[in-house]
Amino acid sequence: VNTKQLAKSVASGERSSLARAITLVENNEEEAVLLLDLLAKKTGGGFVLGVTGPPGTGKSTLVDRLISAYRAKGLKVGVVAIDPTSPISGGALLGDRIRMMSHATDQGVYIRSMASRGWSGGLARSTAQVVQLMDAAGMDVILIETAGIGQSDIEVVGIAHAVMVVFMPGMGDDIQVLKAGLMEIGDIYVVNKSDIEGADLMVINIMSLAGNTKSRAPVVLKVSALKGEGLDGLVESIEQLRAKFSEGSSGLRIRSVRGMILELAKSNILEDFKRTSESRVDKLALEVLNGKLTVNDAARRLSK
Amino acid sequence: VNTKQLAKSVASGERSSLARAITLVENNEEEAVLLLDLLAKKTGGGFVLGVTGPPGTGKSTLVDRLISAYRAKGLKVGVVAIDPTSPISGGALLGDRIRMMSHATDQGVYIRSMASRGWSGGLARSTAQVVQLMDAAGMDVILIETAGIGQSDIEVVGIAHAVMVVFMPGMGDDIQVLKAGLMEIGDIYVVNKSDIEGADLMVINIMSLAGNTKSRAPVVLKVSALKGEGLDGLVESIEQLRAKFSEGSSGLRIRSVRGMILELAKSNILEDFKRTSESRVDKLALEVLNGKLTVNDAARRLSK
Repeated sequence: VNTKQLAKSVASGERSSLARAITLVENNEEEAVLLLDLLAKKTGGGFVLGVTGPPGTGKSTLVDRLISAYRAKGLKVGVVAIDPTSPISGGALLGDRIRMMSHATDQGVYIRSMASRGWSGGLARSTAQVVQLMDAAGMDVILIETAGIGQSDIEVVGIAHAVMVVFMPGMGDDIQVLKAGLMEIGDIYVVNKSDIEGADLMVINIMSLAGNTKSRAPVVLKVSALKGEGLDGLVESIEQLRAKFSEGSSGLRIRSVRGMILELAKSNILEDFKRTSESRVDKLALEVLNGKLTVNDAARRLSK
Repeated sequence: VNTKQLAKSVASGERSSLARAITLVENNEEEAVLLLDLLAKKTGGGFVLGVTGPPGTGKSTLVDRLISAYRAKGLKVGVVAIDPTSPISGGALLGDRIRMMSHATDQGVYIRSMASRGWSGGLARSTAQVVQLMDAAGMDVILIETAGIGQSDIEVVGIAHAVMVVFMPGMGDDIQVLKAGLMEIGDIYVVNKSDIEGADLMVINIMSLAGNTKSRAPVVLKVSALKGEGLDGLVESIEQLRAKFSEGSSGLRIRSVRGMILELAKSNILEDFKRTSESRVDKLALEVLNGKLTVNDAARRLSK
């Protein structure tokens, strides 16, 4: 298929073309970059919300509820769900996605599961590009749900306009979790499963830790996604961020563009490295084994 | 402290100096590189075994058993245990480490837990350097236990001389898990918890998948680390690999050196990028917002 034609039909919101375009991006085909450049002028309309937090806190259920809320407003919703089954962590969480998939037959919803895989940095790169495609295809709200298993989560939500971090009661005991990079990135903190004991304490913990590390005061909310409690307040908080975005707030917009540039550039650099290092590393390894170089010298040469 | 003095006392196997050296490496201090260069000639004696596999398969218990087996042979054992609590995955697995820590008072055992954190690539880099330190400090066998949560596991065990992949019965149903990069990297495959139904089927699955993807035939073994069954055969298999290593097998040695060079170089490159991109990305992001550049153009400029 002609790339220009594909760009046109993606921009017209044609679902099968969007699917094909996303596959090009996921496979990192050369054509994908051309396609994204052709679509660049069609982007900037969609509000991108990153949803992250430890596994088991109910991120998928919350995303499901947010899809419903935005569909009720007549808006188109795109979802990039990073597949927690990959690379080797097993398939335990897959069931949580089933509820979300009930939206898959809704023509105003586009859900794409993505596996984290391959060379580091590839996930944030492909997520950034899939978000651009969904944006160009006319999605008004794009939700990125991360797997909640590692540093890559932080990178992935770095490409969003705003970030919602999901916890549940009882996690406040494990200060490690709260300090692991999540207290600096949230605009909204949700204590989900708020009917479990300890929700209020969790709210207090988050307030003190998130307040300590950033000048702005993020919103902290108690929610029960499963029971539907606190959802109106959550949607309202997201809508306040989306309103800022729609008014053209350069703060929110620059954050996302900045994150995308950084992740795409990092991916370029790592791919260059992978391509060029393969042929050189064997010779360097032999020199290390022969005592002519230290491992660190060899690494310095390779990274030059 | 003088770096030369520190190198000397690490090389003499002084535990508190080894601890201090590891902290330098973990914090990525400039002094660490100098220290490692000073110690380069003392390395090459320790056999490095990577232990990976999905969470819950009993890697820590197996590592505990291997420590006992090698201590019984009078060998010194170093362990690098990548902390599965980090960055944001919660602390569920920490309890599994308690058994292993019973060795911590043994002067012939040195165990270091490491948190995966920060910029991508940092974990494999620091693991490679900690392994070099343990090697220089006279550890005969160095075990690297990964957290089993992602792509970083594959990178981390890439610095080992040989790799043991741990599964348990029932995982064969989830072919995803078996295909996620683990079938290409193992020298030994362990089906742990072999008293659970399905162990034989799991062995067959591994044999067919691991055999299909590599010319050599890796060893597949049923083990119950908890009950102590099959451990002698496992140690024997590891000893065959260690014997090859001791005979100077360039294949095993080059694999580890190659992995270390690649990970150290990648870490250098990412740190350079982090340092140099911060000052440039804001200007590029503004140009994207002003429609002068596409995000992809900006990324290409930043990665040049």
